[in-house]
Order: sequence, then structure tokens, then C-alpha cells
Amino acid sequence: MPLTVTDARIDDAPATIRIDDGVIVALGPDVIAEPGDEVLDARGMAAIAGFVNGHGHAAMTLLRGAGGDLPLRRWLEDVIWPAEAHLTDEDVYWGTRLAALEMIRSGTVHFFDMYWQPAAVARAAEDAGLRATVGMPLFDDGDASRLPEVQRTVVTSLDELAAFGPLITPSLTPHALYTVSAESLRYVAEVSVEHDLIVHIHLSETRHEVDEWLAAHGTRPATSADELGLLGPRTILAHGCHLDRGELELVAARGATVVTNPVSNMKLAGGDMFPYPLARDAGVHVGLGTDGAASNNSLDLLADMKVFALVQKHTAGDPTVAPAAEVLALAQGRLSPLLGGRALEVGAPGDVVLVDTAQHALNPGPLVDNLVYAASGTVVDTTIVAGRVLMHGGRIEGADEVVGRARERAAALTGRS
Amino acid sequence: MPLTVTDARIDDAPATIRIDDGVIVALGPDVIAEPGDEVLDARGMAAIAGFVNGHGHAAMTLLRGAGGDLPLRRWLEDVIWPAEAHLTDEDVYWGTRLAALEMIRSGTVHFFDMYWQPAAVARAAEDAGLRATVGMPLFDDGDASRLPEVQRTVVTSLDELAAFGPLITPSLTPHALYTVSAESLRYVAEVSVEHDLIVHIHLSETRHEVDEWLAAHGTRPATSADELGLLGPRTILAHGCHLDRGELELVAARGATVVTNPVSNMKLAGGDMFPYPLARDAGVHVGLGTDGAASNNSLDLLADMKVFALVQKHTAGDPTVAPAAEVLALAQGRLSPLLGGRALEVGAPGDVVLVDTAQHALNPGPLVDNLVYAASGTVVDTTIVAGRVLMHGGRIEGADEVVGRARERAAALTGRS
Repeated sequence: MPLTVTDARIDDAPATIRIDDGVIVALGPDVIAEPGDEVLDARGMAAIAGFVNGHGHAAMTLLRGAGGDLPLRRWLEDVIWPAEAHLTDEDVYWGTRLAALEMIRSGTVHFFDMYWQPAAVARAAEDAGLRATVGMPLFDDGDASRLPEVQRTVVTSLDELAAFGPLITPSLTPHALYTVSAESLRYVAEVSVEHDLIVHIHLSETRHEVDEWLAAHGTRPATSADELGLLGPRTILAHGCHLDRGELELVAARGATVVTNPVSNMKLAGGDMFPYPLARDAGVHVGLGTDGAASNNSLDLLADMKVFALVQKHTAGDPTVAPAAEVLALAQGRLSPLLGGRALEVGAPGDVVLVDTAQHALNPGPLVDNLVYAASGTVVDTTIVAGRVLMHGGRIEGADEVVGRARERAAALTGRS
Repeated sequence: MPLTVTDARIDDAPATIRIDDGVIVALGPDVIAEPGDEVLDARGMAAIAGFVNGHGHAAMTLLRGAGGDLPLRRWLEDVIWPAEAHLTDEDVYWGTRLAALEMIRSGTVHFFDMYWQPAAVARAAEDAGLRATVGMPLFDDGDASRLPEVQRTVVTSLDELAAFGPLITPSLTPHALYTVSAESLRYVAEVSVEHDLIVHIHLSETRHEVDEWLAAHGTRPATSADELGLLGPRTILAHGCHLDRGELELVAARGATVVTNPVSNMKLAGGDMFPYPLARDAGVHVGLGTDGAASNNSLDLLADMKVFALVQKHTAGDPTVAPAAEVLALAQGRLSPLLGGRALEVGAPGDVVLVDTAQHALNPGPLVDNLVYAASGTVVDTTIVAGRVLMHGGRIEGADEVVGRARERAAALTGRS
């Protein structure tokens, strides 16, 4: 059924928005609902494009708070990996549903995911009504003889993911240069080109990892990725904290996207912050991600875009870096063609977030500045994806069941409740 | 009327809390309400000590978002100071009421304030039901001949503030070393000792200010403050970003408190971050503040304690720095005797916050870790100060009027709405 959102404001002008078949078909002060439309009264609300979470591992909500404040290696080896060794489909499904709850609550409409049992991720996203670009993590511990195994994993996971509807986009998600062999990465690059699939990979996250790569290979990670055919307009590089100027120019030349995850990077304390001003100067496409809840530990891009702006200003020693309107566009996935974010306009996806302009955090002052610096996700009143209302008045149908089921799965997985 | 909060949980154990005459008089699993008590059912809630906002300028909510992303000097000279030149009592009152709304919403029970028309601040805090330690900003532009004017200001403001009830604590708030003459600062130090008053002053906020001070005086700011008699157990130093090891040892030896305001410091990009690990090693008392909404731009200590932990881990390159339980205690004002934070126990102030443990951000996982890393202020269901329920179920009486009146004052002040 078409949806008409009446009497909202966009950029401080009155606007009614009509969405049909998942797409905005009319928008403006004089648009009216047609007979048979679902109508949503948006008086007192500002309408903005929804947020795009460019990198994460949604089901890691199940591991939220597990091993907090531990050093990275102990956190992974003693806490995260042992728990993940026992993950079931149901775990991933309910963990992703819990993540979806949090993302819907804070206005995210699309998330890019890399996690085990990606069909369970896709099923959870579809049931929750969110767009998701998902993939099976690929690892071979740098052992080229395991290429056939990687190939089988790729084929099987793509087959499984092809069964889903238009909200789900299959992708290729090799874990990282240092955990996947050159042979497997070349294969991934070829499949990406052949089938026009996004390749989403961790790159240059920690100083330690970059130092080790440079010592072992004599080239910096982005250069190596390029030599493997992995850098292109379909590539999402998660993190990019230690990319130097030459690497940024290469990434820009290839049209790849870097997704920065400032909260996770700070929490795990792996080294430098993504050099955003340099990357922008070089013309790199950029996006913003939360990373998994185990290292964030929330999935609220409204909160994270503030941290992004703060840490970029602080690092640069310059309060004019990362101005509010640019940061908002970043979080909406509008600074990368790959992330698919669009301004609200006819022809754009019907992914609309309504924020309650009466909330104290949004008063007084300019809306965009307040969204970036003063608000957290709870200013979001309504989240609409592809014309379907996932939340209205802050209420999401079935939320209590999701929290309860996720608690059960987490307890079974980690002995915690 | 005494208040009994029934069936909450404290540190995962069942607890009922009885508050009489503003103080916790009974606490435990077997406590029951007495006849005539107001009773608040806290099933499904965890009770924690409320947050203490150690430094701010509450009424600057009126200037929220004004001049965002400008360089510091232009921001102050072109935007903030011209607006402040026209502040009325009513502006300060409604700006502070708006700030109080946001602080109550996010579980703050006490704020330390430095702003014009402090009697209006005190009246707003009292009307809102919050504890406030307030003072009149003192400036003489380093001109010792203006000492009599500073003395009159001190006497007048202390007289005005003495008229308020037990929620309000008068204090002395000289702006900074570089804006107040040595003569006036010595006078402030004497009045502080004579009348047992807190001295709350900005110190070592920006690198520029410290470099200039050092060049002009040959001593570092904390050393100069000590020579003026300003460093003692009644002293709150706001910021302290550039305190070196010697200064931290001096501050510790004198028993003074440093209140760090990480969000404001990052947003204004004035230089380094407060060296928290060094300060803790030296034995310095510490607190957490939001600073004013014009440089934060929210007043949510639950959000700011996450940013504090993130930036300290990132700066140290060590994820074990600033562990969750310590950060929570910091935000509760429990790492400084001056800030008055206490664990929930018999004899402590009846300042209790109830958080809704069913919220998705608090599931699954350990509560303290989730409060610091996963929650924002909206997990707070109920805020109680001195046994008075200021918010319950997320609802604060009169909130709409406060937002409306603050919008009017802001519009009149800045031409914005």
C-alpha cells in the first residue's frame, strides 16, 4: 500500500511525502494522499534521509559488554572467538534482530554487515524491515591451499543470499589482507567484477597490523590490496585508520569507499584515527559505521556521528573540521555512491526518518547542528524503510520479544544473561 | 513526605530504598514502606547513584548550536559574547530550566555552574528540583584597580545566593587566571577559606592559553594558582587539559579537584586531552563535566562518560585505561570529595536514578559496562533528588512549557528560534 507522510518539514519548509512501491514518488508542500494510501501525520516532525551504517557485525549485540576493557588480543582470544565458535543460526538471527531494534530506534535504514550465518542475518533484516548488504566472512589463515574451500563458501553463501527480496544485497566479505591468502583475495576480486558485487573488507585498522604487513611485504596495505585487484568502485574498506597520503590518493583514484568507525577504533585503542581531512582532500568516498556492538557498544549513528566530529576536530586541532552538514551527509551514506544514501527527493528510496523537533535536545537552534552535536538516537520518532513504517512514536512492534529472545541466546552462548 | 522506592535492584541484588528528609534512611531487601510514605514501584529497574555534572554554564542552552564549527576566537567574539551582553534574568532562568530538563532526563542530580545572574540559575535549579553549586563569574581583565568592583560582586552575589534552600550551594567562580588579576584572585582565595566556599575556576583549558601564561609569567598555571593561594581542598579546576606531571602532583598534594570536560575540549579543539591516567597515578581527585551546551552541545553525562572513556583509551593507546566501573564512579562525582557523590547507602543523599533494564541498549550483558558504553541518557526512567521524584516513566512535569519559554528567550536573544 502506498504511504503518504503528511505535513512534515524538510530543510525547514513544509513537505508531504508520498512513497509507492518503495520509492518516493511525490514530495512537496502541495502533495496530497491518494485514496487508499496509508497516511502518517507528521506535524511537528522534520523529515530527513535515514542513516546508513557502513560497517558492522550486527549479531555481536549478543556479546555486548563481554570482555569490556580487556586488551585487544585477550578480548578476541579469550572472549569473542570462543563464544563465536558455538554460534547457531538462531543466535545470529536474534542477535541481528536485537541490533535491528537499536538501529531502527536511532533512524538507521541500511546496514552493511559481515558475519557468520549471513542467511540468518538476511532473514533477520528482512523480518525487521531493514535494508542489509550482507556477506559471509572469508578466512583461510593465509593458506593458499584452502582456496577451494573459500570458493565453496563464496558460492554457497551467494546462493543462499540470492533467495532474499529487494531489501537484501549479497556481498563478498573477506576478513582482511592478513587473514586471507593472496590467491583467495584475487578470486574474490574476480567474482566481484564478474557479478558486480560489493567487496567489504577490514583494512588498516590497527597500527600493529599495518606495521606487521609492511615488515612482511614491503608495501602498505592499500597498495597490496590494489595489486590483488581488490581496490575498485565496488570496494568498501572498513577502518582505514593508518592510510597514508599515497594510499589515500590510490583509494580515491580507484573510486573505493572507506568506512570509518571512530567509536570502535577509540574503544579498542588500536592506534591512529582515520585521517578524514586528508581523505576528503584526496577525494576519497567515505562512510560512517558503528562496527559490532561488542566493540562500540551501541549501534546509534546519531551518537556516533557526534563522536566522529569530535575526534576529527580534536585530532586536527581545528574546530572547523567536519562541519555539521557534512557529518550528517556522511552518516546518511551520501558521501559514497556505494552506500546508496540519497537526499529526500522524487526517485530516491522511500527511507525516511522523522525526528521530533519538540524534544529538548533539538531546542533552540539549527536542526542540522543539533542533530549532529546535541541529539542521540532517541530524537527519532518514526523510521520508514522502502515505504514501510518500522517505528512510529518510538514504538517498534514486537520489541519486547526480541529483547527477551536475544537475552536467552546470549545466556546460552556466554553463560551471561 | 518520605519516599519509598520498592523492589529495585542495586548491584544485581533486590533492594527497597526509603528516603526521609532528603536522606536515605533505610535500604535493603527487607525494607518496607511505612504508613504515609509516597511509594514508587521500581520493579524492572536498577537503582544507581545520580550523576554529578562538575562543570558547566547551564543557561548556555539558549546558545545551543550558535556559531557551531567556528574557530574558538570567532565563536566567542562574534557569537557568544555579543549574545551574552544582553542576557536578562528571565533568559538565564529559562535557559537553566531547559538545561535542568536535559539533566533530569539523563539522571544528573547536581550541577556545578558558573554563569551570569547566578540567583536566576539558583531559582531555576530550585524550581526544577536539582542540586546546584552556583557562582557569579568574576572578571577584571587583569586590572588590579578593579578589585573593589570584584569585592562588591562577590559580596552581592553571595548575599543573593544565601537566600536559597538546601539544594543550592553558593560558590566563588573567578573565570580564569588570565582574566582576573592576582589581587582579585588572592581575595577570592581568602574569602574561600574564611567562609568555607568552593572556588571553581577554568584552568589549563587550551594549549594557547597555557603557552601565553608560561611566556608571560615563567610559571605553569597550576603553580601560579598555588602561589595565589587558590589550590586547596575546596578548589575545582575545570579542564586541566595541559597539566604536566609536576602540576598534577601539586594539585594532588593540595587536595584540589580537576573536572574534565572531554566533549567540549574536543569540539573546541583547544589542544591536548586531560591526562587522566597520569592524574590518577598522582592521586588527583577528578570529576566529569559537560561544560555549557554551546560547546557540547548536550548535557547528558551518560553520553559524555562514554566519550570520556573512548578518548582516554584512544589517547593512551590502551583499551584497559578508564574501565567502566571507574568511569561510572567518576560521572557520579564519587572520585572527588568536593563533588559530593556517594554510593547508595544509609546516610547518603536521597539522589537516586532508576534505569530501565529492559531497554535494548542494556541487553544483554553487564549493567555497569552497558551504562558506560551502550546507553545514552534515555535509559533513565526516574530521577529522584533529595527524595523528590523529578521524573518518572521518562516524563517531567511542565517540560513542554520549559521548551517553549526557552525557545522564546533564545529567539529574543539571538534572533533565532
